[in-house]
Amino acid sequence: MTHRWPRLDGPAYGGDYNPEQWPEQIWAEDVALMREAGVNLVSLGVFSWSRLEPTEGVFDFGWLDRIMALLHENGIRVDLATPTAAPPPWFSSAHPDSLPVTRDGQRLGTGSRQSVCPSSPDYAEASVRIASALAQRYGQHENLVLWHVFNEYMAPTGECYCDNSVRDFRRWLRAKYETLDALNQAWGTSFWSQDYGDWDEIDAPRTAPSAVNPAQRLDFARFSNDAWLACFRRERDAIRRHSPDVPITTNFQDVRCQGLDQWAWAPELDVVSNDHYLVAEQRDNHIGLALAADLTRGVAGGAPWLLMEHSTSAVNWQRRNIAKRPGEMARNSLAHFARGADGILFFQWRASRFGQEKFHSAMLPHGGTDTRVWREVVELGAALQALAPVVGSRVVPDVAIVWDWEAWWALELDWRPSQDVRYVEQVTHWYEQLWRSHLTADFVRADADLSQYPLVVVPSLYLTTEEAAKNLRGYVESGGTLVVSFFSGIVDENDAVLLGGYPGALRELLGIVVDEFLPLREGETVRLSDGSRADLWADDLRLRGAEAVVEYADGPAAGKPAVTRHSVGAGEAWYVSTRLAAEDLRALLARMPAVRSEFAGLAETVEVVTRRGEDGDRDCDYVTVINHGEDEAQVAVAGHELLTGSDVSSLAVPAGQVRVVRRRLGG
Amino acid sequence: MTHRWPRLDGPAYGGDYNPEQWPEQIWAEDVALMREAGVNLVSLGVFSWSRLEPTEGVFDFGWLDRIMALLHENGIRVDLATPTAAPPPWFSSAHPDSLPVTRDGQRLGTGSRQSVCPSSPDYAEASVRIASALAQRYGQHENLVLWHVFNEYMAPTGECYCDNSVRDFRRWLRAKYETLDALNQAWGTSFWSQDYGDWDEIDAPRTAPSAVNPAQRLDFARFSNDAWLACFRRERDAIRRHSPDVPITTNFQDVRCQGLDQWAWAPELDVVSNDHYLVAEQRDNHIGLALAADLTRGVAGGAPWLLMEHSTSAVNWQRRNIAKRPGEMARNSLAHFARGADGILFFQWRASRFGQEKFHSAMLPHGGTDTRVWREVVELGAALQALAPVVGSRVVPDVAIVWDWEAWWALELDWRPSQDVRYVEQVTHWYEQLWRSHLTADFVRADADLSQYPLVVVPSLYLTTEEAAKNLRGYVESGGTLVVSFFSGIVDENDAVLLGGYPGALRELLGIVVDEFLPLREGETVRLSDGSRADLWADDLRLRGAEAVVEYADGPAAGKPAVTRHSVGAGEAWYVSTRLAAEDLRALLARMPAVRSEFAGLAETVEVVTRRGEDGDRDCDYVTVINHGEDEAQVAVAGHELLTGSDVSSLAVPAGQVRVVRRRLGG
Amino acid sequence: MTHRWPRLDGPAYGGDYNPEQWPEQIWAEDVALMREAGVNLVSLGVFSWSRLEPTEGVFDFGWLDRIMALLHENGIRVDLATPTAAPPPWFSSAHPDSLPVTRDGQRLGTGSRQSVCPSSPDYAEASVRIASALAQRYGQHENLVLWHVFNEYMAPTGECYCDNSVRDFRRWLRAKYETLDALNQAWGTSFWSQDYGDWDEIDAPRTAPSAVNPAQRLDFARFSNDAWLACFRRERDAIRRHSPDVPITTNFQDVRCQGLDQWAWAPELDVVSNDHYLVAEQRDNHIGLALAADLTRGVAGGAPWLLMEHSTSAVNWQRRNIAKRPGEMARNSLAHFARGADGILFFQWRASRFGQEKFHSAMLPHGGTDTRVWREVVELGAALQALAPVVGSRVVPDVAIVWDWEAWWALELDWRPSQDVRYVEQVTHWYEQLWRSHLTADFVRADADLSQYPLVVVPSLYLTTEEAAKNLRGYVESGGTLVVSFFSGIVDENDAVLLGGYPGALRELLGIVVDEFLPLREGETVRLSDGSRADLWADDLRLRGAEAVVEYADGPAAGKPAVTRHSVGAGEAWYVSTRLAAEDLRALLARMPAVRSEFAGLAETVEVVTRRGEDGDRDCDYVTVINHGEDEAQVAVAGHELLTGSDVSSLAVPAGQVRVVRRRLGG
Repeated sequence: MTHRWPRLDGPAYGGDYNPEQWPEQIWAEDVALMREAGVNLVSLGVFSWSRLEPTEGVFDFGWLDRIMALLHENGIRVDLATPTAAPPPWFSSAHPDSLPVTRDGQRLGTGSRQSVCPSSPDYAEASVRIASALAQRYGQHENLVLWHVFNEYMAPTGECYCDNSVRDFRRWLRAKYETLDALNQAWGTSFWSQDYGDWDEIDAPRTAPSAVNPAQRLDFARFSNDAWLACFRRERDAIRRHSPDVPITTNFQDVRCQGLDQWAWAPELDVVSNDHYLVAEQRDNHIGLALAADLTRGVAGGAPWLLMEHSTSAVNWQRRNIAKRPGEMARNSLAHFARGADGILFFQWRASRFGQEKFHSAMLPHGGTDTRVWREVVELGAALQALAPVVGSRVVPDVAIVWDWEAWWALELDWRPSQDVRYVEQVTHWYEQLWRSHLTADFVRADADLSQYPLVVVPSLYLTTEEAAKNLRGYVESGGTLVVSFFSGIVDENDAVLLGGYPGALRELLGIVVDEFLPLREGETVRLSDGSRADLWADDLRLRGAEAVVEYADGPAAGKPAVTRHSVGAGEAWYVSTRLAAEDLRALLARMPAVRSEFAGLAETVEVVTRRGEDGDRDCDYVTVINHGEDEAQVAVAGHELLTGSDVSSLAVPAGQVRVVRRRLGG
Repeated sequence: MTHRWPRLDGPAYGGDYNPEQWPEQIWAEDVALMREAGVNLVSLGVFSWSRLEPTEGVFDFGWLDRIMALLHENGIRVDLATPTAAPPPWFSSAHPDSLPVTRDGQRLGTGSRQSVCPSSPDYAEASVRIASALAQRYGQHENLVLWHVFNEYMAPTGECYCDNSVRDFRRWLRAKYETLDALNQAWGTSFWSQDYGDWDEIDAPRTAPSAVNPAQRLDFARFSNDAWLACFRRERDAIRRHSPDVPITTNFQDVRCQGLDQWAWAPELDVVSNDHYLVAEQRDNHIGLALAADLTRGVAGGAPWLLMEHSTSAVNWQRRNIAKRPGEMARNSLAHFARGADGILFFQWRASRFGQEKFHSAMLPHGGTDTRVWREVVELGAALQALAPVVGSRVVPDVAIVWDWEAWWALELDWRPSQDVRYVEQVTHWYEQLWRSHLTADFVRADADLSQYPLVVVPSLYLTTEEAAKNLRGYVESGGTLVVSFFSGIVDENDAVLLGGYPGALRELLGIVVDEFLPLREGETVRLSDGSRADLWADDLRLRGAEAVVEYADGPAAGKPAVTRHSVGAGEAWYVSTRLAAEDLRALLARMPAVRSEFAGLAETVEVVTRRGEDGDRDCDYVTVINHGEDEAQVAVAGHELLTGSDVSSLAVPAGQVRVVRRRLGG
Repeated sequence: MTHRWPRLDGPAYGGDYNPEQWPEQIWAEDVALMREAGVNLVSLGVFSWSRLEPTEGVFDFGWLDRIMALLHENGIRVDLATPTAAPPPWFSSAHPDSLPVTRDGQRLGTGSRQSVCPSSPDYAEASVRIASALAQRYGQHENLVLWHVFNEYMAPTGECYCDNSVRDFRRWLRAKYETLDALNQAWGTSFWSQDYGDWDEIDAPRTAPSAVNPAQRLDFARFSNDAWLACFRRERDAIRRHSPDVPITTNFQDVRCQGLDQWAWAPELDVVSNDHYLVAEQRDNHIGLALAADLTRGVAGGAPWLLMEHSTSAVNWQRRNIAKRPGEMARNSLAHFARGADGILFFQWRASRFGQEKFHSAMLPHGGTDTRVWREVVELGAALQALAPVVGSRVVPDVAIVWDWEAWWALELDWRPSQDVRYVEQVTHWYEQLWRSHLTADFVRADADLSQYPLVVVPSLYLTTEEAAKNLRGYVESGGTLVVSFFSGIVDENDAVLLGGYPGALRELLGIVVDEFLPLREGETVRLSDGSRADLWADDLRLRGAEAVVEYADGPAAGKPAVTRHSVGAGEAWYVSTRLAAEDLRALLARMPAVRSEFAGLAETVEVVTRRGEDGDRDCDYVTVINHGEDEAQVAVAGHELLTGSDVSSLAVPAGQVRVVRRRLGG
């Protein structure tokens, strides 16, 4: 990844701006209010294709020229989008075979977004044409600081099962496997009579009478990810030809999008961007926010990233769209910032009057400026300006969590031991206990250099490659502490079981062997020997070098080891064979070497994250404290508090408030 | 609406009669039993197309001639149906493109009913042919008193997404909008790149990757309603040519059918008819019955209407088809009658031996005449004869409720603030409290003349036209009391938000502004300052002229107004921003001016409804009392009780019984 | 049914063996381990089509020759399968119209199993070709003892709605009805305008706007069963031509497969086989196992049958695939054996490394031989050898239960009085109380000779033919005790109601008449006069010769008879009009004449089943005792215990253990 940040002073602040939805008369008001709020960046042109190219090959850039100029005059920079996430009616009408087809064979309709197949050649041509035209016209525009390709790839349209997709899938397979023998081997086609004798016999893994070959489905997930990535590359390369100096991004969607493998995409971008939305009804949903932010920073390789979208208050597409409470938007925004987001943008600037998303909150609500939301938007703009010194600094992690999209895909295919094992839930369970322990986690690839981390957590890494297993072993041998949770290391990259006792990929490293999985019944819980409670899963496990840390006291694995520890080289490899209750998992984490936060004594509801940067010629820490609780928090950190502009020897953070202290390091 | 009642003596009594399902030998028994039961009207020919026209264009009227004659000889009048709700096999087989297509693109099969698209030209031709043939042959038959077109329009087939429908939708849009600019404006097509450059680019709003343009969906709902209405008009006009003197109806289905806008249909009928079925498992389902009856009277403009179908006991299509308990059928029937139904008909006369509905109860059960149901059918026939003087009188309303199909359609499209806000539930919540307060409600259009009502309730009228808003304002200014519940007045007829603070259409009238919707979590309740409880919804509301009647005591709107009152002109406009608990809403209603029933002191379980008519040269009231409770009720009403034939000075109504007292008015 | 047992010594033991999924190097290990475990029979070739015929008409039998030889050398007999349950890719690719179509019109994909329509002429040709080729090559092989046609007919693919199916359905109807008049009469097409004027107008009963003609659906279920049976016959006959001496089977799936009428299929087989899988999360799922075993024995006419598949531990396709606990596999296996299975086979020999079923347990787990499962497999092999004398003996029944697939189909069509009445649940409810009363049940056809049974139970036999009703009457008149539960005897074979009061087919025999069904609300219970509790259903019932045994104390039928008894000839006909609570039903059974087990005093958790055979020149009983409880059981049975090889005068069975005592009969 080439990390190239848009030319901006201080943190980016702003949102999606769709002037084409409004009469030009109110543009002046828009821009004045943007200035009032401290907005310095807006995303233009997302979904504007039918306005920019009203008929095939005929462009209307007039309105865009005018708003670009107006923004320029007002010092508001532009993130210009290619509008390719929503082909216009003339396109779908002329190319009905470009509409996506579901796994059930249903051709989807128009009037929505992403109604397009990534393998449509007509779409390839049309999307490159509009991207090129935009780049040619605006690629050198002084006010342009960022390109925004498409919008939210693979949401909602991920896999497509149309004829074009099948044809492309065959090509992709041919490139990957070269011979049918290799493919038949990898897919285990001797099961259920699926040996292929001709490439053209291969179909997309559409709905069939029973479960479909899991290796085929896994490759189709990879293919679909690659097909969309190819769409991105096509547009990016077209833009680069005319606008080589402006960085290019596209906006990811953290754990909301299963299909897009961000590890594969991130190296293709100049800046990593994320769209984050709270699960509104969920309790403590700011922990999910923190996870999303840390994951985004992980795929950005630790570099600052851009929060391309979040909401000032409620969204519109959940079952009950709970509005944010006073102060919540600021806490959300500054939590992202604390976790590495050097820009805080919203969907969207002005609430739409019509269309599917009109009940999505915005910076400027339907009610106008005499509203709580608007006032908080203005305050947040000011706060970000006060935090300008933090820009460019890097988050200081305590531990690492292994995250892997392919493992997620494989884990959630049909017919696993228990449908209750869901990847995001398992990772979140671990993440949440780290968060409540005031530990900041980096998300990493299983084959990454882990040497900087005292502890690495591997939640349910069902699919584990040989390379990953080797890397984890090296990490432990060199002195690291590894903790692996159940149903990890089970299959290889083709979803084939690693034989000889589970978990085949990690058995030696963990010093155990699992003879059989013992998933628990719905609602069933078991007790462990130390009084812990657990649910969801147990293993029929034997020690092969490891020692038992805790045993099962009852349930199907009564008397067998539940948690084990294996000394390997200079390090330790732990294994947790069940889902421990939250507090019990937290207690277990506290028993591991070197896992203690500087802020361990604080209430669980107080979030603390540190970014490390430079202050003049000295290193410094920017310690952000977010008080999610109902009582004032007292935090032992001294330095200069940026939001109130005062020096503190000990920091008091009122309930619901955020503080950022600059603490100088070294002598 | 031309109100033309069928020529009948006394209340209509009878049901659907399908002699074609039985050997002709038993017709004599049928007719003898009908006479025993006091049946004076039967619906013939519903679903008889394949018997009347066994091959395209070849008719067999012999059996119908014979049964018409037999009924005539026995003084049983006929409501003759066109059989067009179920095209025969030869039709579907010859015209497979007439079969309806779902939103998901599935072409539906045969062997059922309403397997036809309203835009099929072949269906138009065939349905007019059979309707004309029937009208030509029977249009002047002495025994014919009513025409019954189709059966239950738009249930189950409402919207169709086939090519014919799309073609017709485009024509309909062209007629409505004239220019694409107007359509693009109305639909807000600048959102998500949907600007249309050619009419042929427009598709039906079929299932797409994400939510589809709500204005497009709303227009498609209007188009679908119009498409079926056109089917009705075609048949009606064909009948009128040969049978100008016989009134024409079709049977509605009250709140069970969302798609059919009865306000649009009713003016096209001579008599309004309704099919009502209890939600069998629901507690107090007689309140839902009362609502349905009042709504039907509303669309009939207050005139007497026909209960075309209900059941003597269980139906067959619910999950658990609970049988009616002894006396329940009579209470149900007389409640409809009390609320304006001058005819009580059943589906059906004789229980089918075969087919999909054989477990639907009937007047004559599978078990024959030695059954509870048959005995009660005979008793009911006698009761209705005793009530003959009531025929033609009009129900006396206490209050009015605004009901609007378009508001219903719009409210329940995708992506609203909370999926928990359902139109029928909201209206029912208000209706039920009025019912329990012994207040009779008329259902009215929002743009109707409301001057006769002391109180008008507007539950969740999400879509509010300018005309409606103006009418409501006029009503209040002239001294009326208006009560509006949350999520009313939000959008215009194109589902576009009325800006400047919610509720845009009613903000001034209510003297408030809502900055933000605060839908509540699942199961969440809040307390109000007067001790009331509420759930589902709250508003972030500020007063702009209104006064706060009650505030929120906790929850997301704590401290803000929950219920407000605004004096406007000679009247008052109330606003209720949440769903109050039933008893709390009842208490609130009791606080409003002029909302007190003559029968307010009665137990909640006693239903009282008054019809006003003439008795000789004097006006009189027919006061129907239905005792749904388990204790005898004593009601302060004096006059002549029609069912027992006795004069009463104070009325005692035993548990489960019904009484109808004629009370003379004036001196 | 020609009962021809495979040539084997002692009970069959083994499982599905798929050597084609493994390198040939490990075959020797497989065979050595099979010998260690006592395996004497394996099923080869299931799903091997793409390996046996890699291209249309080109065969590769080399690998099969080699494994056949290796097994032969090691004395392991072969059950050779035709691989036709999964056509290879070349077939589906060349014949896309052979892929099945759902009721919703969705053409299903490949990559799975049974992706084929039974009416495909191309499939007919291809399946006969491969079956013939196998029979020609191996039909005289010394090591071949059984043919296994297809695999699990009608699971997952039962009904197909493609054009070929529709064409065949019309042919089938023409053969059944000869004239359209007869069909119109049988289907009741006068309901909803469905009279057919041409055979080509008839369609499969695909999803339609509303419920589809139930008689049409019932005939389509019959047709689909026949279409698959024709597939079986085609292959069987092709095999017989080359291999007349080897018995032929196919594996049923007990109550898991609704679509296949085993009464119709069993006579076409030489040996009846069943695949049984526990409902893993269900409490006491060994009772469901016993039911399945008894049902299989019933369709085998009491002759020994083959347990073709079950699992050593967890399966992979349930929501939570609970592993079996130690000893459970042996209890399961020996329960099948006790109930007539003379062979105990597993899916599968060696756990797959890849594919959809890799998490299905096997005889040889992924972990190899140092595992609990493998050790128990070896033990079970030894136990079965000790039980060799039992082979060929016959189970001794106490009572009979009527079971009928057509009644099941009809009962669960759309629009019955209550969706809560499910056939398998109703039968299971009765079966379970018999099981807990230590009574062994035979499953019988309603028209079978019932004279040997003192008690015959008829649970919810909704569809009852005239012949069945006559047979049940004859049984009672001759002295039998019949007990019929609610919603029996309602319709004839065309799903047409038998008029004159329910239950039309059994009204006279039971001496009652039911005027109306009174299904109960969800969760509603009623009390009876003897203190019993019941739910789900009640009847409005009058006595017509019977006497009331118990009445309803409350609920909608309060005061009416709930259980009745009618003396007819030398016997009694009981009727139970509701679902009694388990213990109350057990108490009621105990009140019936002649229903008491020899082992009635044992704990409910002790299962006892007797097989009667010969021991030299004397008859003997083999009494199997399975202790599912947690305490040792003491059973009053004396003789020789086969598993421990000791003589006992009274049998002690430890918790979780199984014992089989040979008890000599006569002098």
